[in-house]
Order: sequence, then C-alpha cells, then structure tokens
Amino acid sequence: MARVVVDVMLKPEILDPQGQAVQRALPRLGFDGIADVRQGKRFELEVEGPVDAAALARINEMAETFLANTVIEDFTVKIEADEKAEESK
Amino acid sequence: MARVVVDVMLKPEILDPQGQAVQRALPRLGFDGIADVRQGKRFELEVEGPVDAAALARINEMAETFLANTVIEDFTVKIEADEKAEESK
Repeated sequence: MARVVVDVMLKPEILDPQGQAVQRALPRLGFDGIADVRQGKRFELEVEGPVDAAALARINEMAETFLANTVIEDFTVKIEADEKAEESK
Repeated sequence: MARVVVDVMLKPEILDPQGQAVQRALPRLGFDGIADVRQGKRFELEVEGPVDAAALARINEMAETFLANTVIEDFTVKIEADEKAEESK
C-alpha cells in the first residue's frame, strides 16, 4: 500500500493567527531567530492499489474539493515512499 | 532565509478521530480506494541566518518541547529549499 501526503496551508496573503501565536511564543520560551511561522494541515492517505496518474488525479480532485478550501488555502500532493509501504508490498 | 518544515503526526497507536472522519466521508463523496487517513499538523518556519547543525538542533528541541506533544505525537524536521528561499538569498 502506498502513502500519499496532502499538505494544506493557508495562502501567503491570508492571516494565520495560529502560526502567529506560535511565533510570538517562541522568544518567550528561549527560541530566537525564527522570522515567521505558518501552521497548516498534513493528511496521510493510505492508497489501495497502484498510485498511477489516474489515482493521483482523483486525489488531486479530492484535495481540491474536500481537504482544502481553495479560496483561502493552497495544497500540494506528494507520493511518499516509506518503509512501511515497502514492507507491505 | 531558509524554510524548515516540522511535521507533527499522532503516533500510529493513537486513535485519530479527525482522520477517521475524513476517511468515512470519502466514499460518500465518491472517492474510493483510500484505506486509511491520518491528519496531522505542518509548521513552516522561516529561519533567520544559516540552517546549520546548531540551528537544526535548536529547532528539534523546539519541536520536541513546544510544537509536538511527544507522549502522543511524532515529529519530523526537514529543510525545504523552495524558490522563495532561493530568491531572497
């Protein structure tokens, strides 16, 4: 079984209060030198069968219509070859 | 400025109700063939100065003590070379 990762992040022009809260907390906790933090979502999908062009097209459609709100969010789809996937082949 | 990405996911043995909700909604929406979905967090950190071993060690400590709850979550730290980072050099 193959793993496909969909990362969903707020578009750069959209305010990210979660990321800002993290960024502001860092100096207080002793961590300097971080200019900006953006927080988003990561979906790990375990796909049955081969991850071919058709499967990726479906996952792209899924990300666009369901996982991300494309008015305010961008998404990327990546195939991840991990050890678990290798083992279960 | 370099971008470092911290991915935080629930440990495999921890129940993920958010991921399950997504997985159950997929067939209803016409998307089949997804065996499992896990949802986690993605932090994009813009790091001032060079991302050397010392900076990575600090970011690892930050992720371990602040961004992730290591009782229930795993995290990975990756340096991401993106176009924006290249341009601003």
